[in-house]
Amino acid sequence: MAYELFYWPSIQGRGEFVRLALEAAGAPYRDVARLPAEEGGGVRALTALLAETGGGGPFFAPPLLRDGSVTLSHTAAILQYLGPRLGLVPHDEASRLRAHQLQLTVTDFVLEVHDTHHPIASSLYYHDQKPEAARRAELFIKNRIPKYLGHFERVLDSNAGHAVGTALSYVDLSLFQIVAGLGYAFPNALSRVAASIPRLVALHERVAAVPAVAAYLASSRRIPFNEHGVFRHYPELDPA
Amino acid sequence: MAYELFYWPSIQGRGEFVRLALEAAGAPYRDVARLPAEEGGGVRALTALLAETGGGGPFFAPPLLRDGSVTLSHTAAILQYLGPRLGLVPHDEASRLRAHQLQLTVTDFVLEVHDTHHPIASSLYYHDQKPEAARRAELFIKNRIPKYLGHFERVLDSNAGHAVGTALSYVDLSLFQIVAGLGYAFPNALSRVAASIPRLVALHERVAAVPAVAAYLASSRRIPFNEHGVFRHYPELDPA
Repeated sequence: MAYELFYWPSIQGRGEFVRLALEAAGAPYRDVARLPAEEGGGVRALTALLAETGGGGPFFAPPLLRDGSVTLSHTAAILQYLGPRLGLVPHDEASRLRAHQLQLTVTDFVLEVHDTHHPIASSLYYHDQKPEAARRAELFIKNRIPKYLGHFERVLDSNAGHAVGTALSYVDLSLFQIVAGLGYAFPNALSRVAASIPRLVALHERVAAVPAVAAYLASSRRIPFNEHGVFRHYPELDPA
Repeated sequence: MAYELFYWPSIQGRGEFVRLALEAAGAPYRDVARLPAEEGGGVRALTALLAETGGGGPFFAPPLLRDGSVTLSHTAAILQYLGPRLGLVPHDEASRLRAHQLQLTVTDFVLEVHDTHHPIASSLYYHDQKPEAARRAELFIKNRIPKYLGHFERVLDSNAGHAVGTALSYVDLSLFQIVAGLGYAFPNALSRVAASIPRLVALHERVAAVPAVAAYLASSRRIPFNEHGVFRHYPELDPA
């Protein structure tokens, strides 16, 4: 039976880390909220599932993954569940623990990226918190991008260029997405640190060239980056 | 062999969720950074472990747990690892998945609590971001406390007052800590929502009365809440 992903239909957002894993593995899946209502899709299918108390719920927020009778929320938990089933994490326990911890660090970074444009509240528009966003983004670029990317670079350096194991993992896919997202949202900031993170840059290129990933990125299933998702390009937040 | 917890020695912080699990289970453990340097303790032992690349590292941030040859970071990953070993999560897979997801929601909430006093950057002092903190805290109290606590209340309601299973779990301990922390940091805000979260309030009282927990809370091992941790009491952020 196909996996069912429930996520906002018009953004990459946190759901994209799950989409990339499913796509890279060639797994059959339904991106439910992007399907027409007459096929059981639409945002209503997502919000209805969020409110369910059976099968593990209630759930706090998307993305959600449904696999038969199992429903899961939280990107890192979903990837921990999918990893072994999709062949995207090594078999040994040490590698799986390492992969999950790395994914949780990705989660933390993604929230920091989000909060560059929403430092006060998710409930407000960006234009209602622009001065605070400018202040937060400046320090994010100065301190947090180097800290996180430097960490991931050391991780790759400690393991011959892979996040875990010796083959493509879901963590590699997530690191690809982080570099891709920063390249969209903060191209100037990324270009300034690129020389110091050669392994991460190489990983990004290598993952983009994986045939299943390349096919996905070229398809209409890959929603373009936009200013509703996590990675937003506001030029005023990324000065040259 | 005793578990070894590595966390900042002067705050509860994120490490407290791990301390509570170890204490509630009566597990032998060393709170390494709180031990004297001559016993292998101190903050230096923590920072040295963070930089290690063997055994799963490098690690991004504390808390870290070492169990023999296994070293883990991220509160939720540590609790996922400890839960079955300490008897603080049911045996069945569905309950374990549910527990981990709930813990990840706790993680998200704890970061939002932190960012009420640090909305711009962790690298700045609170007094360098007070106007932004006031704005963020107001919306946190208005929207986020009701949303998160309401979610946890529904979770407890859906499962006879327990986060998972039918006995004390590490998630119950974490929900206790959230209520305790909000009671310290945002007493006015908490008192306003208390009537709408009876199950969460009851859980807090029930966990505090668990003998091993009560003994811990009364001991010098429980670091008092203070204005260096996650839950900080700044009266100006919690108006009556």
